[in-house]
Amino acid sequence: MTNSPRVTVWNEYRHEKTHAEVAQIYPDGIHEAIATHLRGAGLAVRTATLDEPEHGLTADVLAQTDVLIWWAHMAHGEVADAVVERVYGRVLDGMGLIVLHSGHFSKIFKKLMGTTCNLKWREAGEKERIWVVEPGHPIAEGLGEYFEIPHAEMYGERFDVPAPDALVLLSWFEGGEVFRSGCCYRRGSGKVFYFRPGHETYPIFHQPEVLRVIANGVRWAAPVAGPSVRFGHRPDPLES
Amino acid sequence: MTNSPRVTVWNEYRHEKTHAEVAQIYPDGIHEAIATHLRGAGLAVRTATLDEPEHGLTADVLAQTDVLIWWAHMAHGEVADAVVERVYGRVLDGMGLIVLHSGHFSKIFKKLMGTTCNLKWREAGEKERIWVVEPGHPIAEGLGEYFEIPHAEMYGERFDVPAPDALVLLSWFEGGEVFRSGCCYRRGSGKVFYFRPGHETYPIFHQPEVLRVIANGVRWAAPVAGPSVRFGHRPDPLES
Amino acid sequence: MTNSPRVTVWNEYRHEKTHAEVAQIYPDGIHEAIATHLRGAGLAVRTATLDEPEHGLTADVLAQTDVLIWWAHMAHGEVADAVVERVYGRVLDGMGLIVLHSGHFSKIFKKLMGTTCNLKWREAGEKERIWVVEPGHPIAEGLGEYFEIPHAEMYGERFDVPAPDALVLLSWFEGGEVFRSGCCYRRGSGKVFYFRPGHETYPIFHQPEVLRVIANGVRWAAPVAGPSVRFGHRPDPLES
Amino acid sequence: MTNSPRVTVWNEYRHEKTHAEVAQIYPDGIHEAIATHLRGAGLAVRTATLDEPEHGLTADVLAQTDVLIWWAHMAHGEVADAVVERVYGRVLDGMGLIVLHSGHFSKIFKKLMGTTCNLKWREAGEKERIWVVEPGHPIAEGLGEYFEIPHAEMYGERFDVPAPDALVLLSWFEGGEVFRSGCCYRRGSGKVFYFRPGHETYPIFHQPEVLRVIANGVRWAAPVAGPSVRFGHRPDPLES
Repeated sequence: MTNSPRVTVWNEYRHEKTHAEVAQIYPDGIHEAIATHLRGAGLAVRTATLDEPEHGLTADVLAQTDVLIWWAHMAHGEVADAVVERVYGRVLDGMGLIVLHSGHFSKIFKKLMGTTCNLKWREAGEKERIWVVEPGHPIAEGLGEYFEIPHAEMYGERFDVPAPDALVLLSWFEGGEVFRSGCCYRRGSGKVFYFRPGHETYPIFHQPEVLRVIANGVRWAAPVAGPSVRFGHRPDPLES
Repeated sequence: MTNSPRVTVWNEYRHEKTHAEVAQIYPDGIHEAIATHLRGAGLAVRTATLDEPEHGLTADVLAQTDVLIWWAHMAHGEVADAVVERVYGRVLDGMGLIVLHSGHFSKIFKKLMGTTCNLKWREAGEKERIWVVEPGHPIAEGLGEYFEIPHAEMYGERFDVPAPDALVLLSWFEGGEVFRSGCCYRRGSGKVFYFRPGHETYPIFHQPEVLRVIANGVRWAAPVAGPSVRFGHRPDPLES
Repeated sequence: MTNSPRVTVWNEYRHEKTHAEVAQIYPDGIHEAIATHLRGAGLAVRTATLDEPEHGLTADVLAQTDVLIWWAHMAHGEVADAVVERVYGRVLDGMGLIVLHSGHFSKIFKKLMGTTCNLKWREAGEKERIWVVEPGHPIAEGLGEYFEIPHAEMYGERFDVPAPDALVLLSWFEGGEVFRSGCCYRRGSGKVFYFRPGHETYPIFHQPEVLRVIANGVRWAAPVAGPSVRFGHRPDPLES
Repeated sequence: MTNSPRVTVWNEYRHEKTHAEVAQIYPDGIHEAIATHLRGAGLAVRTATLDEPEHGLTADVLAQTDVLIWWAHMAHGEVADAVVERVYGRVLDGMGLIVLHSGHFSKIFKKLMGTTCNLKWREAGEKERIWVVEPGHPIAEGLGEYFEIPHAEMYGERFDVPAPDALVLLSWFEGGEVFRSGCCYRRGSGKVFYFRPGHETYPIFHQPEVLRVIANGVRWAAPVAGPSVRFGHRPDPLES
């Protein structure tokens, strides 16, 4: 396992530039809030954003990325298909991908899931309580039995994703809904972790438990030096 | 698949005989409330209770049972180990088992799960809302997106069971907890469905949605005429 | 559960028209070989092929299809994206989909899996032995512990698909490979079953065990009348 | 995650003392062959055997064990139930457990699985080829697409265990069988890895790939400092 995975935090980075309220909470962007924490946890971190050339996700950057973190909300449609294909190829080749909150509707997540990734939502600043249901999973390290987010956008079931390979976190919402909030998947040689919390108008990415889960997710999703798989025609049987 | 599975509803049948309050809700016992509904749904149903000889679960009865439903609460320890072994053998041999509510602590469920099956609980008559997270699963047939139980005993996570093969239902509780309330498992050639709702002092087993889920569970858990598996020494290779 | 699912057998239907060898084995096409068997099993079956208008998969046909069976090999790229989207929408909406053999590379299967669906292959007429690993699964009904295909195209692991929700069948090949040959998935409200055997130049779709698995798959994949899921904005909390 | 898990290798250690043939292959016992390799991989390792007091698995030893490796074959019945309970409690509390080969019939594995763990077997020195089906799993690190064991005891499906949470390795046998040879499970806060290869009369525990998988398994199964779960009566709701 990679001891110190190299992380790229990708952010759409639009809300922060156009909404004063968001800029106040994340003056350098959501990506920098997350990146700063991960650097403090000893990880090598770079950032990339939508408006950079190739969205900052060149072949070279991706080749040097062990785990990619994805936050986006209002501009999913502006992500170039060629970049989506590039990220997709890297995930299948072993790169980890952590999809945050509204990233559920990103092209890359929908493509990897094979479903609509749709859900119910409501912006009412409700309390969310996130329960750990797999206490022995690496993503639960350092957490208590639950943690609370004082004011959150509600996401409710039915969440239209395949059943996760491991379900680690479950959310309770003040308004009466529940949600599978921490979902682990394998796709190709790579790993995908969907983590529900986060919003541009709440300081959720400053909350220690949320940042802890993201850092845990990075370590879980880091690539493994497993076999190089050769697909296609194998004309010679292994046995004669 | 068996078109019309033969059902045995097993009930500890103690609370009903000693608590007037329970007797009022279930005058003929919880087993009769469930059996009556299943008969109305066209199933062949018998009942059995703890205080019958061999708890009513003789080898003969079990041999004629396609799906066994299990409710118990205060007397798990009085169930004879020999009967537990007999039920266990039948499940591995293909019989379906539906475990209701406090049956989570029964000997048979703990033996089939391989874990403590422990959980959090509170008796405060809280509202429970049960969400369907797998709308295409046979156990969800005929349900809406959720249904509510006005007054329920709370069961909260961490529920110490193996991750289910399919998670169909998730509960939200008024007091702030969540629970994996509809869990499907395969064990041997048999199927096990754990269904959380139900309590001796609430009329939950008179509620149409709860009875519907139990009937759906019976059909899902019914035996399949699959291969007879031969274990052990196979001295002759299939290939030479 | 739908008691008698309406089936549409879809076939690319090219090999049969251009290769005498294939036409000899499947004079009316692979679709008719399968459809004939399923009709004999009491199912309502229609067929559709690539060269019909809209590939025979109009909105109307799909609306009247409970389970769609898919065989294709040489012309995956000719399937119109609009038709793929239509089938995709129907699967997420509850329709069952059974993908046979070389259908692993169809647009619809790759889209639903979210992976390349790549594998190893070899055409050497090798013996294949298919083992049942989940004897209690509905898809194993009527089978023995294993069945053999005397001459098959080899498909070998790594099969680049997500881990199935249930793995029912495992193949052994004479040349030394293994393969996950019966894989069940849930996607949206629908079910997908991938079944490996089948080839245009072997009479595999005349073999009783293979036809039995397909018929079992149809019954397993049939739609369930579960909840209608409402996605999107839910402005009003369920609790106040 | 524990950076350097403390390992205890437990061995029945009977064959080595009574069969000259076995003693020649494993002069210091199977446990020392495994322990020596793991020490070389930088792990802290102790050993314990059946004939020591309390089988060498005192509460103190287990409290200092992060991952326990289990090999046994001819004397499963001699393992004291009290020790089985102690190991069981530690697994649910977070300790990793790696069960090797004939350990499938140990009391502890059967108790954790909730099934018979039965299988087919044949001692004919057949070739086994073990394929990696999850190339991105930590247990596949450093492996090729497959590795071979020149002479092995055959274990064949149906293997009567619950479907694993992750299936990493699949075996092909010369005689015509297949087997799920690398199976990962979560039980309580602990992890269990079943790994098929190994036999007292073949030098399998000297083979580099086999030792590599065991070392990988140790790292995967190491405890996580997740939440301390409090079960039982929670009289006070979290919400009022």
